[in-house]
Amino acid sequence: MTQTRVLSVPYAKAPFEKITMETRELRPYDILIDIKFSGICHSDIHSAYGDWGGGIFPMVPGHEIVGHVEAVGEEVTKFTVGDRVGVGCFVNSCGECEYCLKGEEQYCTKGVVQTYNSRDYDGTPTYGGYSQKIVVTEGFVVRIPDVLGMDIASPLLCAGITTYSPLKHWNAGPGKKVAIVGVGGLGHLAVQYAHALGAEVTVLSRSNDKKDEAFELGADHYFATQDTATFTTLASQFDLILNTVSANLDVDAYLSLLKVDGTIVNVGAPGKPDQYNVFSLLMGRRSIAGSLVGGIRETQEMLDFSAENGIVPKIEIVHAHQVEEAYDRVLRSDVRYRFVIDASTI
Amino acid sequence: MTQTRVLSVPYAKAPFEKITMETRELRPYDILIDIKFSGICHSDIHSAYGDWGGGIFPMVPGHEIVGHVEAVGEEVTKFTVGDRVGVGCFVNSCGECEYCLKGEEQYCTKGVVQTYNSRDYDGTPTYGGYSQKIVVTEGFVVRIPDVLGMDIASPLLCAGITTYSPLKHWNAGPGKKVAIVGVGGLGHLAVQYAHALGAEVTVLSRSNDKKDEAFELGADHYFATQDTATFTTLASQFDLILNTVSANLDVDAYLSLLKVDGTIVNVGAPGKPDQYNVFSLLMGRRSIAGSLVGGIRETQEMLDFSAENGIVPKIEIVHAHQVEEAYDRVLRSDVRYRFVIDASTI
Repeated sequence: MTQTRVLSVPYAKAPFEKITMETRELRPYDILIDIKFSGICHSDIHSAYGDWGGGIFPMVPGHEIVGHVEAVGEEVTKFTVGDRVGVGCFVNSCGECEYCLKGEEQYCTKGVVQTYNSRDYDGTPTYGGYSQKIVVTEGFVVRIPDVLGMDIASPLLCAGITTYSPLKHWNAGPGKKVAIVGVGGLGHLAVQYAHALGAEVTVLSRSNDKKDEAFELGADHYFATQDTATFTTLASQFDLILNTVSANLDVDAYLSLLKVDGTIVNVGAPGKPDQYNVFSLLMGRRSIAGSLVGGIRETQEMLDFSAENGIVPKIEIVHAHQVEEAYDRVLRSDVRYRFVIDASTI
Repeated sequence: MTQTRVLSVPYAKAPFEKITMETRELRPYDILIDIKFSGICHSDIHSAYGDWGGGIFPMVPGHEIVGHVEAVGEEVTKFTVGDRVGVGCFVNSCGECEYCLKGEEQYCTKGVVQTYNSRDYDGTPTYGGYSQKIVVTEGFVVRIPDVLGMDIASPLLCAGITTYSPLKHWNAGPGKKVAIVGVGGLGHLAVQYAHALGAEVTVLSRSNDKKDEAFELGADHYFATQDTATFTTLASQFDLILNTVSANLDVDAYLSLLKVDGTIVNVGAPGKPDQYNVFSLLMGRRSIAGSLVGGIRETQEMLDFSAENGIVPKIEIVHAHQVEEAYDRVLRSDVRYRFVIDASTI
């Protein structure tokens, strides 16, 4: 076993504590990772605050993990010591169900084991990436392409795959009109992916504040949703709307922007239920859908695609003692666009 | 112009009056139909009661129209006098937009002209099938296969196509598990279509009252939704749920019955908004969708498919003076499963 420094939340909403924990002993297929950077995801905050109930405390959040392989179990074949690797939102799945076999482990019928605030199948709690070391089975570790900085790559492990996967699944590409709702940690990557995939990209953001940045990210058009004329101008325009905002939206208003057979896909979940008028769906055979991260194979594909297409998350590096301040700023939407913890400061 | 007896509603919620109206003069592509039967659809009631606002009165409801061709305009090529024909939910569309060109006129970008309670592009109000005669352009008239009784065929023009179209669109067929919610005018046809298309069909109905009938219609399984165990037993089972019920459902409970990538399709619209928790979508990349009747080409396909596969709506014939009573019974769900007006009694 290896000792590691971690940032731990002893109970819901408590301040972080720097403590020492032990990683699990290396099993044959395990990899010990020397973590360099760990991104801060909005869901870390929900988990650490106990917003979704049932949190496992003490909790070590973090599922955007990048580092070097420090040691490998005796059966490991995929990686060797020194490799640049990443870990995303889950660290185990049954490996046998139809979804695992298809490489869509996130939908494992037995239930995927999340990187933190979860229990592995043997009952052991999982602890995440706000840490200096982590042990993960090789099947849930991906390779970080050389051209991606380790700090830069970190947010791709959750925010990247969460937006890349639905854009691929719903065929964003040449000839398709795609709207991205929100330009935050997720949205600023979604704009880049949709553009790189060849779609015509419209950004829908509350105000005009992020207009210039949206165009830099690859948007073709930009509309402020606080201007109600936007919903008239853009009526029945889009094949796909990717909603990266976790707040409740006026779903009917957004549905009215879809073409026949268009889909609005949610990747964030607001605390309260959304509501819609069924007529909004009937009148154009429209759909409301959701998408959850992506499988390991697709996560690797997303990293390679990002490297090839120069997809770069905009990040702000923080030290361990700044994580609470970073949380506050995320909650105020005062970040462009993702905080990444320098693990050496833990 | 031809005079015709009609059942007219002079203002919202008023009793029906038998009056005489004039059909429009036959244009080159028009067909004069001698109506034999006209089905009663739940939406007739909403329209006649002004539930959806903005009704055009006097109103002659009815969009499940079957009869014989009595006369044809000089350019008509598709039909000749004496042909057995039907008219469904719409009687005109722009003919030029991408949806009209694809044969999905119901989604016409200019807005389809509905069979009644609508205005044609020249501003003329449309009057529906509770009538002895109607004039419709040949492009919106379909042929009733010889083996289908005219009375029997009537409900297919709305209830039939409304259920057939989404089952085809979402690929109900061999290897697919399909649930039909509700066994009413729509649902009892949906069960027959899903079965004939080769899907494994589960009926979800409030109580066990319709169990025997559901099996006769072709259901493979039947579960009562008032038994909460149903939602545990059937968790993550279905590729497709076709919801034929117009009341608000517990959408999250039904979403939990879908497999990954499963879709619940609504074909009726409740008066109040539905609500859902976005997590219900995220956790299995599930979708909520809606579907609106079907195009003319698909309506003909549905009629031919019904004839080939012995799809038979169960109907109760009513006379003109019984329509109000029939409306009351529809509202009490006291019909198995569709009322059809004998037009000779108007």
